[in-house]
Amino acid sequence: MPGNPSNSAGLKAVFVVRGEIRLTAGKVAVQVAHAAVMLYQVAERRDRPLLQRWLDAGQKKIAVTVATLEEMEQLQRRARAAGIPAVVVEDAGLTEVPPGTKTVLGLGPALASEIDPITGGLPLL
Amino acid sequence: MPGNPSNSAGLKAVFVVRGEIRLTAGKVAVQVAHAAVMLYQVAERRDRPLLQRWLDAGQKKIAVTVATLEEMEQLQRRARAAGIPAVVVEDAGLTEVPPGTKTVLGLGPALASEIDPITGGLPLL
Repeated sequence: MPGNPSNSAGLKAVFVVRGEIRLTAGKVAVQVAHAAVMLYQVAERRDRPLLQRWLDAGQKKIAVTVATLEEMEQLQRRARAAGIPAVVVEDAGLTEVPPGTKTVLGLGPALASEIDPITGGLPLL
Repeated sequence: MPGNPSNSAGLKAVFVVRGEIRLTAGKVAVQVAHAAVMLYQVAERRDRPLLQRWLDAGQKKIAVTVATLEEMEQLQRRARAAGIPAVVVEDAGLTEVPPGTKTVLGLGPALASEIDPITGGLPLL
């Protein structure tokens, strides 16, 4: 990871939400929050200086959407191949969806230059 | 904090979203995620065993809504008076709302028996 400070502002986390699952706004929000906590834990173990730079720059995050589970899993594979932290939230299924349903893919924090080629073309949630 | 294991399942974080601000589902999700990361950081400093119990029990979270900023600030005061960690997310205001707009109050993780008297009556987001 280069020490160039201009890269700090470029760190972001991206949350990819499955659009075909019908969840309330509140349910989506807590699933994304769950992914954010998972990514935080991964970054603490894996690259604490990067985590700190992301936090210092305002912990930039965006939420985007994909149409299907297959698309989400493809993005997960591409992120992992690129060395970007990737976590998947599985809903406990107590309310709106069956147990174990994969709802959100969390990616990053990573440099925009690394993550944008993977998720840059997806529509905002 | 009592060591009774039955309390572990009762730990929760609650995210109070201002309903009168018109935000997209994606924007709400990242603001709630921001609050979750802030609460995680507070808990790491303040009570790591409690944080670990919350994580081990599936990091339970719910999102509720209030009508006004005044209601949100009143809940914040009540939570702080009760010793419950409370954080407020201020939007950077680059897109949907003016800079510094308070969007989400994050509370907890705390025992349901402590947090429910404060937020239990609020409608789910």
